[in-house]
Amino acid sequence: MSLVVIGSVAYDAIETPHGKRDRMLGGSCTYIALSASYFTKTSIVAVVGEDFALEDTTLLAGKGVDLQGLETVPGKTFFWSGVYSADMNDRKTLATDLNVFADFEPKLPAAYAHLPYLFLGNIQPALQLSAQRQMPGLRFVGGDTMNYWINGNKPELLETIKHWDFLLINDSEARMLAEENNIRKAAQKILAMGPNTLIIKRGEYGAMLFRKDNLFICPGYLLDDVFDPTGAGDCFAGGFVGYLAERGFDLRNGRFDVAELHRAVIYGSVMGSFCCEEFGVERFRTLTRKEIDQRFEEFRRFTAF
Amino acid sequence: MSLVVIGSVAYDAIETPHGKRDRMLGGSCTYIALSASYFTKTSIVAVVGEDFALEDTTLLAGKGVDLQGLETVPGKTFFWSGVYSADMNDRKTLATDLNVFADFEPKLPAAYAHLPYLFLGNIQPALQLSAQRQMPGLRFVGGDTMNYWINGNKPELLETIKHWDFLLINDSEARMLAEENNIRKAAQKILAMGPNTLIIKRGEYGAMLFRKDNLFICPGYLLDDVFDPTGAGDCFAGGFVGYLAERGFDLRNGRFDVAELHRAVIYGSVMGSFCCEEFGVERFRTLTRKEIDQRFEEFRRFTAF
Repeated sequence: MSLVVIGSVAYDAIETPHGKRDRMLGGSCTYIALSASYFTKTSIVAVVGEDFALEDTTLLAGKGVDLQGLETVPGKTFFWSGVYSADMNDRKTLATDLNVFADFEPKLPAAYAHLPYLFLGNIQPALQLSAQRQMPGLRFVGGDTMNYWINGNKPELLETIKHWDFLLINDSEARMLAEENNIRKAAQKILAMGPNTLIIKRGEYGAMLFRKDNLFICPGYLLDDVFDPTGAGDCFAGGFVGYLAERGFDLRNGRFDVAELHRAVIYGSVMGSFCCEEFGVERFRTLTRKEIDQRFEEFRRFTAF
Repeated sequence: MSLVVIGSVAYDAIETPHGKRDRMLGGSCTYIALSASYFTKTSIVAVVGEDFALEDTTLLAGKGVDLQGLETVPGKTFFWSGVYSADMNDRKTLATDLNVFADFEPKLPAAYAHLPYLFLGNIQPALQLSAQRQMPGLRFVGGDTMNYWINGNKPELLETIKHWDFLLINDSEARMLAEENNIRKAAQKILAMGPNTLIIKRGEYGAMLFRKDNLFICPGYLLDDVFDPTGAGDCFAGGFVGYLAERGFDLRNGRFDVAELHRAVIYGSVMGSFCCEEFGVERFRTLTRKEIDQRFEEFRRFTAF
């Protein structure tokens, strides 16, 4: 069932030990939507400038992504540039040019208003909340945030996530949000802030899912080579929420199996791992659903005991 | 079936954010043997000084550990002192007084010579090899090492592990030994050095087991509180090899199920997690096999999908 994704569509310049790209399609909304499109009909809400290339629109449209909510305005598309350390565990931002993204206010097309699933990519919390309010029939809603909002806009962020079913962040963000170093205690504090489900991403070490009465932990997929980790967390998000949308996961009406959440974490991990295999969104040009399901089964094999 | 453990028996002074102990029982052989004793008859080979306390001998004997190979010689017992960082991910060594351990040469009692299982704790590789040569009827043998031997005695270390079934080290040691940063590639290089099974410990992030045709990855157990991580890796080793000895795992004669190796990794993780719950070996004063099996089942629950 249909999913709406809100976030940034951008151009990235990236350098990893494997090479360099001066300008390639990026942005959280792009990665989430491409990843989710393998599971469910996906519609996006984002803004780009007049420099946005036809081939990039074509890539998204080719995956069946609904672009009614992709607004083009005068100016340049959001641009980000970064360089990774030799072991790729660190990256340094070289440039962040918000450009047209600086004035982004999500306006949802009428056709999106009654869709059941919403993923709010990492943008200003007040804008996430305003987008959510435009969708009165939601069955499952949640999103991402980052240290910038946790440190600088915490009351606004708390008001926003209060209305979410799930929050998907990394371990350092979870510790910062909860002001608690122990991850198990941090999770309980975050669950008390509103979301009934918390997913904590741990990069190469996998992910954890917490609910009041449930814990799931999965290790990361072991790649032969990490080519470019950019977007891996967003692809995790797309796989997680995309799979649940595909399954018709219905938390609001109590028609759900908690094991579906565990499998959604695995699909998230699978999508994050594929993302790292090539630069930027390149892997999605060839990736098939069959490869995705095969890697899901591989996860079963290397975690069974 | 009986297991022999060789390594250090020591006194430790430790400071963690939870408190401080000036002198408590420690050493790799101690932790490995205490942990393994929950699964199988365990015999140790180690050396202590005349200051070794009766209560510490009593603790080991009380767990059924065979102390025929525990030699007491004139002088003081090996002493180590360290302090952990606030998040306990780092520790600084304050003192390492080898004392009687400086002249340790493992001499196996005649009664040990035909026992089937051997774990070689982290001591000089040549001594590990000499100990192994005193046991001609081994069914499963392996051990641990550390950066000190990898950097300083590599040819000797390679000659030693060539004769092992399994090597159990942490991720940074694996990268160093293989001279390869990618862990999957490092594992393949190490498997070519002799051991048919490689277990890589990743601390709070769990562990991985590699064989030529097999991969198993398990996440770490999520503790409410890490009180003192000292000895956790050794307790992992004790749980891993102790469980396989209990099951009669027989690699040399081909009577084994590879799934037992996966379960052994889980039992290793379980034992490592219990170790962190109190200072030093304290947790083993009260720990029961029932608690161990319960935590094993808990691992099943939080990893199932």
